[in-house]
Amino acid sequence: MDNESRSVQLNGNKVRGQTGGNSRRQNSPGVGGGAGPTKAASRRQRWDVRPSEMANNTLNPIRAIVDGMELTPNPDKPMISLSIGDPTVFGNLPTDNAVLQALKDAIDSQQYNGYAPSVGELNSQTDDVILASGCSQAIDLAISVLCNPGDNILVPCPGFSLYKTLAVSMGIEVKLYNLLPEKSWEVDLQQMESLIDERTSCMIVTNPSNPCGSVFSEEHLRKILQVASRRCVPVLADEIYSDMVFPGCSCPSMASLSTDVPVLSCSGLAKRWLVPGWRMGWILIHDRNDVFGSKIRQGLLKLSQRILGACTVVQGALESILNNTPQGFYDSTVGFLKTNSEICFNELNAVPGLNPVMPSGAMYLMVGIDMDHFPGFKDDVDFTQQLVTEQSVFCLPASAFEYPNFFRIVVTVPEEMMVEACGRIRDFCRRHHRPRSRNGNDLDQ
Amino acid sequence: MDNESRSVQLNGNKVRGQTGGNSRRQNSPGVGGGAGPTKAASRRQRWDVRPSEMANNTLNPIRAIVDGMELTPNPDKPMISLSIGDPTVFGNLPTDNAVLQALKDAIDSQQYNGYAPSVGELNSQTDDVILASGCSQAIDLAISVLCNPGDNILVPCPGFSLYKTLAVSMGIEVKLYNLLPEKSWEVDLQQMESLIDERTSCMIVTNPSNPCGSVFSEEHLRKILQVASRRCVPVLADEIYSDMVFPGCSCPSMASLSTDVPVLSCSGLAKRWLVPGWRMGWILIHDRNDVFGSKIRQGLLKLSQRILGACTVVQGALESILNNTPQGFYDSTVGFLKTNSEICFNELNAVPGLNPVMPSGAMYLMVGIDMDHFPGFKDDVDFTQQLVTEQSVFCLPASAFEYPNFFRIVVTVPEEMMVEACGRIRDFCRRHHRPRSRNGNDLDQ
Repeated sequence: MDNESRSVQLNGNKVRGQTGGNSRRQNSPGVGGGAGPTKAASRRQRWDVRPSEMANNTLNPIRAIVDGMELTPNPDKPMISLSIGDPTVFGNLPTDNAVLQALKDAIDSQQYNGYAPSVGELNSQTDDVILASGCSQAIDLAISVLCNPGDNILVPCPGFSLYKTLAVSMGIEVKLYNLLPEKSWEVDLQQMESLIDERTSCMIVTNPSNPCGSVFSEEHLRKILQVASRRCVPVLADEIYSDMVFPGCSCPSMASLSTDVPVLSCSGLAKRWLVPGWRMGWILIHDRNDVFGSKIRQGLLKLSQRILGACTVVQGALESILNNTPQGFYDSTVGFLKTNSEICFNELNAVPGLNPVMPSGAMYLMVGIDMDHFPGFKDDVDFTQQLVTEQSVFCLPASAFEYPNFFRIVVTVPEEMMVEACGRIRDFCRRHHRPRSRNGNDLDQ
Repeated sequence: MDNESRSVQLNGNKVRGQTGGNSRRQNSPGVGGGAGPTKAASRRQRWDVRPSEMANNTLNPIRAIVDGMELTPNPDKPMISLSIGDPTVFGNLPTDNAVLQALKDAIDSQQYNGYAPSVGELNSQTDDVILASGCSQAIDLAISVLCNPGDNILVPCPGFSLYKTLAVSMGIEVKLYNLLPEKSWEVDLQQMESLIDERTSCMIVTNPSNPCGSVFSEEHLRKILQVASRRCVPVLADEIYSDMVFPGCSCPSMASLSTDVPVLSCSGLAKRWLVPGWRMGWILIHDRNDVFGSKIRQGLLKLSQRILGACTVVQGALESILNNTPQGFYDSTVGFLKTNSEICFNELNAVPGLNPVMPSGAMYLMVGIDMDHFPGFKDDVDFTQQLVTEQSVFCLPASAFEYPNFFRIVVTVPEEMMVEACGRIRDFCRRHHRPRSRNGNDLDQ
């Protein structure tokens, strides 16, 4: 700070010296000597460079919470992080060789070093497909084309924090609709509908869900679409975990069930193909009754020209990746996620004071904390912080998803780590759990 | 249009049918029968989905002009396009094998499939380097962090059209400062300085220049920095063509010459390594006297989290690409560009009515059209359009860079095509050129 004010002064002096003291006057041609142009002297006299409102308003709730935590693992126990939504970190879930080979073939072809069209390089359907730099950019484009500052969007709670990060940075209000843990995280439809007003420009539906790992039934998806239809709100379907559903469970896309609600479906290679770093995402435009018409397509095309999205080599590999990855790879990934989820659910379901919710897909599992039984902790942040201190296990407190008193477990870790982590969570809970006395509880509240 | 209004009506009817006619009233719980929730009935009654202001305001001047042209080549002559700023399109300028190998090594390592930090995966200097999805995103981030809606930025004229596309879409005003062809495209410093006011939040300096191929001398760069220093305006240096300068010419970076002006330098792999599709760009943060301080860095970090930039595999290859690409590759590219530029300049310099400006770097050459001598054409757009019709040669009219009566030639085409194209341009000009009669000229004006 001292440094900053000093430099400002230094520069201020310099400016005055160079402009002969005339810098305050504007459009005073000829005034003052000096070699420099003094014509339209600016009022700018000192350095004052500040980040934009957009930068200031770009908030990452996960970082805000995690960076505020004191995460000091127990030195006697190796750290197990169950917090990162990246299936590649432990090395136990490599992508398929066919996927890697497709990328190498694209390199060797030398056909994919140049610019692709801004909406991406696709052999078919280009009118209805926009490629983007990851599903994040797909979501960014979809929000950007549908919403103006002052509009609002409906976002699930708990839900992926990026929606809010993007929307708030653009001056768009976020309205949270509730997912109900007691109903396997189905939407509270009535509450959702009550949020809709004239400025509601889209509803985001994440299915399968991050952070819940839940998968909506076809019937429930139809009910959500009915709300959208009644209120004429287009749907932004975040379907990045589509097809990552456990055996016996089905997961139709929103668009496949919609006859009158236009849908922008966002997805990508990140999760199903286990390559989130490759930044290959897309928007599928599902118009209905020409509600989007050519204008929304044109809008997306225009916005896509601002940056140009995905790496062309990955674009070149895309068709092969989609067509040639063996079914066994997908099955094996999903089988692993299901097994690990069951281990985790069964272990934690037997732990006093914890209420895990069994997922049906994606790679997450949410665990409720019966805070009444843990009087030693203020909230989920406090609880998960102490879990690191004592047991070297880190789970993301669901406050990061605006859903306190839960934490999220990522189930992509190797099985033995999952077992070990659950054991440590059990020990931690046993140590801190207090049976609720009715009086005490009343006093607490 | 007909289609659109019909669908709106259809949906309007449907909505009314489903909500029992009560949808106009808000917060009228219990009113109306029906199974659906009618509590907070929205005023929304029909579909009305329009692209956002941002989408509407995202304009691509090149597309706007090219899409408006009638480009029908002469069927007797194969088309030669000198318009596309992509060095890979003709296949004569492949990237180096070391670059391809670096990418394949990154794939084989399997270390780069997961998420990287949002500012990128770099072993050193991470505080001052932000990786981005191409130089375009780097420029987008730099403008986004420095400017608010209502601010203005200084942009070269002629200049790369993306600056305006990005700025206008964000509600930022663009002020054009002039480059002077008679001074090898140096900046009109006095005019530049006269544009600066309280809301000027950065000046963009492109060096070497697209579309001019010019390279500023160190002395001239220092003068630009003096303007920035006097008026306390930070510099956004677009240095994507840095090091692509002809032998005998030097091209210091803006930041290397600046003692008090903070600089965000944007660059990437696209041009020097001939892989524009790989979308690997970066911002180098060159603070001075703590003017940027931690705030601008933090702002860039925040903004980088909105999307997550470059493909991690390319990130993984980056260090090897920067360190292991043989010097001979760079020299050979630049040597080729210089030879082709000389061929083009010498050929067109002998053509009546054309005024080519010899470049010193990058991959472009600007050609002035003495419109007085071509009374058959309205402007540069008309001229270049007719050149396609008669000679099947397409050059980008410089109106696309807000610089009428010039056209831009991309000098990356194979030498024999360059020779052929110049010959055709010569024939075209000879056919249409009219020696200026003084009287006639006066009448024209």
